[in-house]
Amino acid sequence: MHTVDIFDTTLRDGQQGKGISFTVEDRVKIAKLLDQFGVKFIEGGWPGASPKVDDFFAQMRDVKLKNAKMVAFGSTRRASNSAEDDIFLNKIVESGVPTACIFGKTWDLHVHEALKISLEENLDIIETSVAFLRRSGLQVFFDAEHFFDGYKRNPEYALNCLLAAERGGAEVLVLCDTNGGTMPHEIGDIIDTIKPQLKTELGIHAHNDCELAVANSLIAVRHGASHVQGTVNGYGERCGNANLISIIPSLKLKFGIDCHIEDAQLARLSKLSHHVAEIANMTHNANQAYVGQNAFAHKGGVHVSAIMKNPETYEHIRPEQVGNKQEVTVSDQSGMSNLLYKAEKFGITVDAKDVRLKDLVQRTKELDKLGFTFEEAEASFELLMRRKLELFDRSFQLEGFRVIDEKRGHDEEVIVEATVKVSVEDNIYHTAAEGEGPIDALNNALRKVLDRHYPEVSSIILTDYKVRVLNSEKGTSSMVRVLIESSDGKKSWGTVGVSPNLIEATWKALIDSIEYKLLKG
Amino acid sequence: MHTVDIFDTTLRDGQQGKGISFTVEDRVKIAKLLDQFGVKFIEGGWPGASPKVDDFFAQMRDVKLKNAKMVAFGSTRRASNSAEDDIFLNKIVESGVPTACIFGKTWDLHVHEALKISLEENLDIIETSVAFLRRSGLQVFFDAEHFFDGYKRNPEYALNCLLAAERGGAEVLVLCDTNGGTMPHEIGDIIDTIKPQLKTELGIHAHNDCELAVANSLIAVRHGASHVQGTVNGYGERCGNANLISIIPSLKLKFGIDCHIEDAQLARLSKLSHHVAEIANMTHNANQAYVGQNAFAHKGGVHVSAIMKNPETYEHIRPEQVGNKQEVTVSDQSGMSNLLYKAEKFGITVDAKDVRLKDLVQRTKELDKLGFTFEEAEASFELLMRRKLELFDRSFQLEGFRVIDEKRGHDEEVIVEATVKVSVEDNIYHTAAEGEGPIDALNNALRKVLDRHYPEVSSIILTDYKVRVLNSEKGTSSMVRVLIESSDGKKSWGTVGVSPNLIEATWKALIDSIEYKLLKG
Repeated sequence: MHTVDIFDTTLRDGQQGKGISFTVEDRVKIAKLLDQFGVKFIEGGWPGASPKVDDFFAQMRDVKLKNAKMVAFGSTRRASNSAEDDIFLNKIVESGVPTACIFGKTWDLHVHEALKISLEENLDIIETSVAFLRRSGLQVFFDAEHFFDGYKRNPEYALNCLLAAERGGAEVLVLCDTNGGTMPHEIGDIIDTIKPQLKTELGIHAHNDCELAVANSLIAVRHGASHVQGTVNGYGERCGNANLISIIPSLKLKFGIDCHIEDAQLARLSKLSHHVAEIANMTHNANQAYVGQNAFAHKGGVHVSAIMKNPETYEHIRPEQVGNKQEVTVSDQSGMSNLLYKAEKFGITVDAKDVRLKDLVQRTKELDKLGFTFEEAEASFELLMRRKLELFDRSFQLEGFRVIDEKRGHDEEVIVEATVKVSVEDNIYHTAAEGEGPIDALNNALRKVLDRHYPEVSSIILTDYKVRVLNSEKGTSSMVRVLIESSDGKKSWGTVGVSPNLIEATWKALIDSIEYKLLKG
Repeated sequence: MHTVDIFDTTLRDGQQGKGISFTVEDRVKIAKLLDQFGVKFIEGGWPGASPKVDDFFAQMRDVKLKNAKMVAFGSTRRASNSAEDDIFLNKIVESGVPTACIFGKTWDLHVHEALKISLEENLDIIETSVAFLRRSGLQVFFDAEHFFDGYKRNPEYALNCLLAAERGGAEVLVLCDTNGGTMPHEIGDIIDTIKPQLKTELGIHAHNDCELAVANSLIAVRHGASHVQGTVNGYGERCGNANLISIIPSLKLKFGIDCHIEDAQLARLSKLSHHVAEIANMTHNANQAYVGQNAFAHKGGVHVSAIMKNPETYEHIRPEQVGNKQEVTVSDQSGMSNLLYKAEKFGITVDAKDVRLKDLVQRTKELDKLGFTFEEAEASFELLMRRKLELFDRSFQLEGFRVIDEKRGHDEEVIVEATVKVSVEDNIYHTAAEGEGPIDALNNALRKVLDRHYPEVSSIILTDYKVRVLNSEKGTSSMVRVLIESSDGKKSWGTVGVSPNLIEATWKALIDSIEYKLLKG
């Protein structure tokens, strides 16, 4: 079968999703992840629509991409000016990307009601807009907005819109199911009818309003589309966009279609999905196809003994192919093998029969019940293991702290002061510092002491900080889990703290982070 | 087109989902909801597998169902005994249900590896098991386990299994995609091939391991299946089962197929979905097709002005058809039309030309840049709008606060004390309280004052709390965004606070939450 180009629009259509708002730094991080993973096109946003988007394109000019091309999004020109004079089309050109993706109307209802122009005029707008961008040296994709709805009402006109884009020189005609209401059989039937009348490659852009976006994209490919637009984890407005995290493995492993993504890259699919969810601060869906924590989880009994003999009996693919793993009902035995696996990873030599390992299995289960998670906080877990196996001495001991947040009038700033008492190598230090917030003040006070003894501490930067309430029925006295990501500019590590007191939970994660740095040097 | 029978297995396959565990009372409640809604068959569980299931069937004997029939699940007989002597087949008969659904092996691999019997013997097991239940007066459906995987490896044998069930008298042959790995085109192709060779009605039972369960079910119907098995919200093992909440509206509204569910019943779809989620104690997916809170939420300014003119432009169905509603959200992409829509929703009368609205658009964009998001914090946005339009007086004014977190030894608990100074109706109050953490202490101190003046404040409970660092390059002095969800047991609302100080950000969101409650009463 033909190859397929993967076009990611997490940064544009994906961030229309409710609750998703990326900073410029988030956008750059995601673009780099997508490039590493191997997608062919990364749509970054609509130049001129917001300062964030323009900043992002400016920053991306200095980033060397290995696999992907940057794409700027936009609309066909306004009816009131020529393409040459259109502000937004010019902004696309100025953004410095090699590829543009512009959308135009293909449903006559929208031409009448939204644009309020003649059907003929819209065709001219499409053709001249695409042609202008091509003349400006860009590769151009045409997003045929509402194509399927338009085609069902007025097939001749919808097709004419595609032909106008083709005359303008569009390199892909992207059929958009903008409202997400099209059924799978309609996708196939409509593509079969129009394909022979067009010379240009077809693409698909599906929305998930009927929980069909993934299927509709695969069916479009089956009927000849060679370009698939979607987002990581299906993020997007309303019910989301087509989920590339589900589409890519089905294309590669089930259709046998090359998406310019190598097997080794596909094995990073789960990482990509989880990492983008973290950046978006969205809970990862444990039941997500291919990459969810439960996707290959088997409940006890018949299934388990069957998959132990032959995994093919109850698994449609090998989880490792997408970087996921088989999960079996937790038993002391499986807990133990996990620990041994981790010990090896940390470079710790330990006898499988060491009784302290059994304690550690027990302790891990208790902590898990309390709300600790070590998946994103492996540094905390390594410290826990080293302490249990007596392979680790604390570099310092916290004797106590006090932090005061004070607001002395309703228009006044909050003033924060922290004091800490720390023992380091038999000396006791008692210092104080101010800060922007309680954690900052505590951190500043602690650093005053530690920087003296351990200059390497000064390189630690907190790169991410996340808080989740664990048992919300208890209101403001609920347990909270804090996950911290730290970096010393070379490597980064995650730590965790849990407490009903947010300050203490953060403080625990922060102390782990510093201890980990001191351990690793 | 033909009609379709909806077969719900939330109580059996759905409750295999991780984190889902129904009590007997839960099961009865769900069965009643499903019956009211209009599904044709309710599978209640495997008689004899657990006391809960047997209790449930016993209780259901006293419940008069209006639309549905109760179904008991089970397996074909054991190889070592006859159908008449099979304990579990007899338990099905004794459970008193009118309908049985039993599964059997149709993939030769499983016959060899799991059952360890001959292929011939398995055919006899299927036929005699079905026949026994029929002779016992039951309607019988046959779940052909792993049918598609089996058919792809050994089509002749898989078909022979269906023919054996047909000879036994099965009334529906349910094709199961047990591992969820089958692609949409395979479903259609395989059904087209086998259907002419069978006299019996076909059903479909799909799993969501490739995010295709809904599509595969619809495609099976398109190719002639007249019985669809699935669960509410797609609950089920691994990635879940086919989601009936998505399948039913597509069949009714898009395929025009009668599922024995009236329009008025379909209008209760959202309620059914939310209610079962509550019983299962699972967070309802806000992006869920048809019924999610965001399913008809519009963000972009262009979309909003279009749907206000004609909803068909950006909505594939009318949300009311499935008991959902239209929603417009506010962000940096939103323009005047979003604000006007919101004003109307809040019951605020305002002239579109009011200059204060322009200020508000501007202010919203500034706040968005600072890191405020109002999508999950509509209550904060309503307060902002009312303040801007001078429609709102503060009920109380915070004059100041101080909170002290203190840990006096490395094994000691953190002690937290907060003082607040608040003016209410010309009185100034100065109180103090302890708490589990700084927010809890501040909240406790504030409540001490407010409860006196506004007893309704005591009903507020914090139901969710999320923190996100906005510009992590600044380490512990970064800006943080706090999103709070509150509830008074009847309705819930979201508020937001942003500050470099976590305490202050939380405090702001908390104050907004209380002010909102006082505004709404």
